[in-house]
Amino acid sequence: MGEASHDKTEGSSPSKLNNQHPTINTPSNNNNMHHCMDIPMGGLEVHKVVPPPHRSTLQKLMARLKETFFPDDPLHQFKGQPPKKQWILGAQYVFPILEWGPTYSFKLLKSDIISGVTIASLAIPQGISYAKLANLPAIVGLYSSFVPPLVYAVLGSSKDLAVGPVSIASLIMGSMLMQEVSPTKDPNLFLQLAFTSTFFSGIVQASLGLLRLGFIIDFLSKATLIGFMAGAAVIVSLQQLKSLLGIQHFTKKMAIVPVLSSVFEERREWSWQTILMGVCFLLLLLIARHVSMRKPKLFWVSAGAPLASVILSTVIVFACKANHHGIGVIGDLQKGLNPPSWNMLIFSGTHIGLVIKTGIITGIIALTEGIAVGRTFATLREYRVDGNKEMIAIGLMNIIGSITSCYITTGSFSRSAVNHNAGAKTALSNIVMSVTVMVTLLFLMPLFHYTPNVILGAIIVTAVIGLIDVPAACHIWKIDKYDFIVLVCAFLGVIFISVQQGLAIAVGISVFKILLQVTRPRTVVLGNIPGTDVFRDLHHYNESAVSVPGFLIISIEAAINFANTTYLNERILRWIEEEDDGNKHPNIRFVIIDMSAVSSIDTTGITLFGDLRKAIRKKGLVLVNPLAEVVEKLQKVDKDNELMRPDHLYLSVGEAIASLSMAMKNQASNMYDEEMQTNASPKS
Amino acid sequence: MGEASHDKTEGSSPSKLNNQHPTINTPSNNNNMHHCMDIPMGGLEVHKVVPPPHRSTLQKLMARLKETFFPDDPLHQFKGQPPKKQWILGAQYVFPILEWGPTYSFKLLKSDIISGVTIASLAIPQGISYAKLANLPAIVGLYSSFVPPLVYAVLGSSKDLAVGPVSIASLIMGSMLMQEVSPTKDPNLFLQLAFTSTFFSGIVQASLGLLRLGFIIDFLSKATLIGFMAGAAVIVSLQQLKSLLGIQHFTKKMAIVPVLSSVFEERREWSWQTILMGVCFLLLLLIARHVSMRKPKLFWVSAGAPLASVILSTVIVFACKANHHGIGVIGDLQKGLNPPSWNMLIFSGTHIGLVIKTGIITGIIALTEGIAVGRTFATLREYRVDGNKEMIAIGLMNIIGSITSCYITTGSFSRSAVNHNAGAKTALSNIVMSVTVMVTLLFLMPLFHYTPNVILGAIIVTAVIGLIDVPAACHIWKIDKYDFIVLVCAFLGVIFISVQQGLAIAVGISVFKILLQVTRPRTVVLGNIPGTDVFRDLHHYNESAVSVPGFLIISIEAAINFANTTYLNERILRWIEEEDDGNKHPNIRFVIIDMSAVSSIDTTGITLFGDLRKAIRKKGLVLVNPLAEVVEKLQKVDKDNELMRPDHLYLSVGEAIASLSMAMKNQASNMYDEEMQTNASPKS
Repeated sequence: MGEASHDKTEGSSPSKLNNQHPTINTPSNNNNMHHCMDIPMGGLEVHKVVPPPHRSTLQKLMARLKETFFPDDPLHQFKGQPPKKQWILGAQYVFPILEWGPTYSFKLLKSDIISGVTIASLAIPQGISYAKLANLPAIVGLYSSFVPPLVYAVLGSSKDLAVGPVSIASLIMGSMLMQEVSPTKDPNLFLQLAFTSTFFSGIVQASLGLLRLGFIIDFLSKATLIGFMAGAAVIVSLQQLKSLLGIQHFTKKMAIVPVLSSVFEERREWSWQTILMGVCFLLLLLIARHVSMRKPKLFWVSAGAPLASVILSTVIVFACKANHHGIGVIGDLQKGLNPPSWNMLIFSGTHIGLVIKTGIITGIIALTEGIAVGRTFATLREYRVDGNKEMIAIGLMNIIGSITSCYITTGSFSRSAVNHNAGAKTALSNIVMSVTVMVTLLFLMPLFHYTPNVILGAIIVTAVIGLIDVPAACHIWKIDKYDFIVLVCAFLGVIFISVQQGLAIAVGISVFKILLQVTRPRTVVLGNIPGTDVFRDLHHYNESAVSVPGFLIISIEAAINFANTTYLNERILRWIEEEDDGNKHPNIRFVIIDMSAVSSIDTTGITLFGDLRKAIRKKGLVLVNPLAEVVEKLQKVDKDNELMRPDHLYLSVGEAIASLSMAMKNQASNMYDEEMQTNASPKS
Repeated sequence: MGEASHDKTEGSSPSKLNNQHPTINTPSNNNNMHHCMDIPMGGLEVHKVVPPPHRSTLQKLMARLKETFFPDDPLHQFKGQPPKKQWILGAQYVFPILEWGPTYSFKLLKSDIISGVTIASLAIPQGISYAKLANLPAIVGLYSSFVPPLVYAVLGSSKDLAVGPVSIASLIMGSMLMQEVSPTKDPNLFLQLAFTSTFFSGIVQASLGLLRLGFIIDFLSKATLIGFMAGAAVIVSLQQLKSLLGIQHFTKKMAIVPVLSSVFEERREWSWQTILMGVCFLLLLLIARHVSMRKPKLFWVSAGAPLASVILSTVIVFACKANHHGIGVIGDLQKGLNPPSWNMLIFSGTHIGLVIKTGIITGIIALTEGIAVGRTFATLREYRVDGNKEMIAIGLMNIIGSITSCYITTGSFSRSAVNHNAGAKTALSNIVMSVTVMVTLLFLMPLFHYTPNVILGAIIVTAVIGLIDVPAACHIWKIDKYDFIVLVCAFLGVIFISVQQGLAIAVGISVFKILLQVTRPRTVVLGNIPGTDVFRDLHHYNESAVSVPGFLIISIEAAINFANTTYLNERILRWIEEEDDGNKHPNIRFVIIDMSAVSSIDTTGITLFGDLRKAIRKKGLVLVNPLAEVVEKLQKVDKDNELMRPDHLYLSVGEAIASLSMAMKNQASNMYDEEMQTNASPKS
């Protein structure tokens, strides 16, 4: 077997071509272009490049729109179903609860209750803390942990997502609204703006989902997010210095320089009792976090630690009457469930611009976190989350939240991780959490009177420290230096300038990288892997690929468009010059351009080949394997049939070289014959 | 020959694999990865994918920077030359005049004098007209046709470019500066701002060249430029209604709606004498233009027509004393050469922002026109123009111009075409033109006293009508619908909003298209072309390619990055689902991803394969031909050796299918053997 099939695999490789005698594929009937013709000539099969099956402009547009907005083909499951089934599927699509609700079992309920109560124990102290971070009354944080989880349980498709207020969205909303309204001087207006921003966030989120523009959040790359999160964590932690040090007069600025200078200017206000208590509980919480990270089974240690700290510290303060010794406490909290707040939304006045801007930014940030968390756990448990559907769910949750005294909420990473570890099976765990919060709101609020502020600061710091992902940053440094620059810019931008601008800078740099790649696409020179029909990068496979004498094979590795046509022209001419220089006298007869990777071309790009042909008039320019769109456009532009001539266009590099080598040989022997005749004629 | 070699070309194609018995490439020693190992097994040769030769981060960065900023390798010619020769080459590089000057001959001089005088006859009336368009004194237009051509003749590398004021840059400068300063109320300040803007334009242009950022002008695509030019031509023509209708009180706005409404509001000011004269000369000029377009040999008809019209109309006005009958004339013009204007540049004050903005926009627009014109004629005459070098030349020309009473100048398309047709051989024709303009400035200025304004309007309209390129627009419509939308947006934006915003909109849409392509890259399903090792798009080659049973071969046609990772994940899973659905029970054993077109990948993109592997756990995921950068990154990320396992990574689709088919068959026969044994054992 060995030898025989070894010979076979070497088939039409150029190194063996000398033994074959095919003739060149002459420019035959052009009307046949639409049929794929294999023209065997003396054993050499040459496959024609044909235009793709005809589609009208409208069909192309529809296909393009479908790929752009419905890449996941959401209506796929409805196809070919009876109408009744379609209704049921439709209802299940809008309300995922109808999917898992009917088959819900007692066994699942037990898991969901355990995980629900666990996340509630985390959600209550975090809710109060994050509301403080957004400069809102503590009770709003609990309101926001009551209604939104109920809405999400009905609409959301993730089984693990634990929704409620989150640190970064709280921070951004608080800091942005503070630019125009003081939360201490005019708390009511501030609250109104917060609810209105939340309403706009919901509108933005739901619209992105409905309009299938979910890909917008993809522009926040992993590197951007890691840098941004780390920066935000630093900013959030710095804000906690207020409660951790017991400072009364704290700066309203966010960036690291003004905050630190303000902290050290107000050294006289530092309270040693507060600091002592803060350090102790911070250590406790960090140790608990560490334990849970080491042994995921002990997830309840870090999940329960915040509530335990709250209870313990409250008891200490109450017992020692520490609130009279420099330790600030939360104070009186209202009892009762969420009051309606639709009458607090304001859609006019001087602050409307700020409110819309805040809504858009917090909405997109919250969405990014929620979707990313949902996807992470969906991949872990092997189900799929529909991004656009989730956006609608989160959006509606915030719209409903905004009229029931809730501020911006989304899926929280830390609580979702606890939810997952505690064994949550369905979105019912959110309902359980919600009920637990309700009980707290109804009956337990007075107990928080003596809870010291310092403990809330410690809880926030512990929560956000998890956002600083050093190993991921190292990983990015290892894999892609440019991505690391994006990460660093996001981080430095957030801590030194502002949260929004840091994010904008990072997104700008990420997009700039894409544009740079488009402007300077890769071109590589290919060589043959001996014994095969395979052509690969000569530089990459420098030990196995060899260049084919007389041919320069260049592969263009990107779509050709207005931004890179000039570059490609210059670059390809340089490849040719370099090749000619190295060999003193030009020995390249044909320049073959492998178009396999040119996925599209525009009106500027299509001029490239004509310009190249003019520039290298003495050599042949051969195109190989242009893709469907490119073939169509070449055909339209190629009136004098220069580019699409059958001996200028091949389906594979191997066939091009085989066919052109034969033509060259025939030509040479013809010339030789002619010469012989010319020499002979005088004699005759 | 026929039969035998026909068999050969069919070599290792999968359709014939049943006859072969290779064994699978077992995961052998990983340290050998750096050597290319061909492992022949039972006749089936499998080539390994190897990482590219090692390069340090610094080397990669340097290579990347070189590709980004020096794609044309400008220092190439200096390599390996003796120092003296390097000095000469360097001087010639900076001053191209040293290249052609020493070998200049009398024969060339004759051609250059003819063409120089011809373009001067066009440049003088156009100079006066365009200065009016920019709301500047007519004489500045002539100044600008004197100094800049001299500078360009020394520094410029194009042989055909005729430099001087151009319509669009004049229009933009005039309209932008008019936003803050009135040219009628404060003409001196307006002139100062114009010179200062020109200075900044020069700085911007020269900097773009020096910093090798010339690719910025590539972002003005052909479609954008055609739409923009046509829109600008309409706007410029509308402005000429002032002189063509003899209106005194004309609006300062530019957009079509206010201009037209202003024109019809001031109907009482229309002067029939002016209109009659305007219509006659406009017809004359248009006919002359038409004649020259039909017969390029008669280029002198359209080249001479403006000057002839000026002379004729001046004589008529002088003879009939028409200036007392409602026909406006230019009036007194200063005599003498350019006065220095460096003392008129103002770098402080309230207008500095506007001046810089105007400088940047007019600078880039002027540069785009100059470079495009230079490249067009260079291609026609088969020499090359170095874009970055040209930018420095044009920039210096404007800097020197700004201190010698010139406003923004660049290469003019219409005059360069005349220059080319008149047989210009070198940049000396610019010097000849300059001398002719000098003579005019010194001695002939009084003759323009009675030149009617209406003739200047007619000259401008005739010049800019050539900018409306309807055939090119039709061509773009035929080739690329999206590009046509860009064109239309540029056109409508310019005529209805403003010149700058129209341009910004068009550039924005062009860039958005690129980003959309990046966000939604093409994925195609490949099939085998029977009898070859070639795999092509099944949809495109629907008559010749056939799918390989048991395999789904998907080719990703773009770089993978943060903006498209989610999409690619969804799209590939959909391909798999569709394939499985169509065949009722899943018959795909392996999903092969052809990475030949994935030119780069980032940290977000690299997660795609892990996620895909998790999602399709029951099938094998095989990567084929990842390129150098991708192999390197896969290696770094692939700690558990899942993606880089030799049986998950192949150099070509053909080898992957051959090798995996064998493995499947072996497995099947093993299972069959086992089954036989199991069935047999109870009996024994």
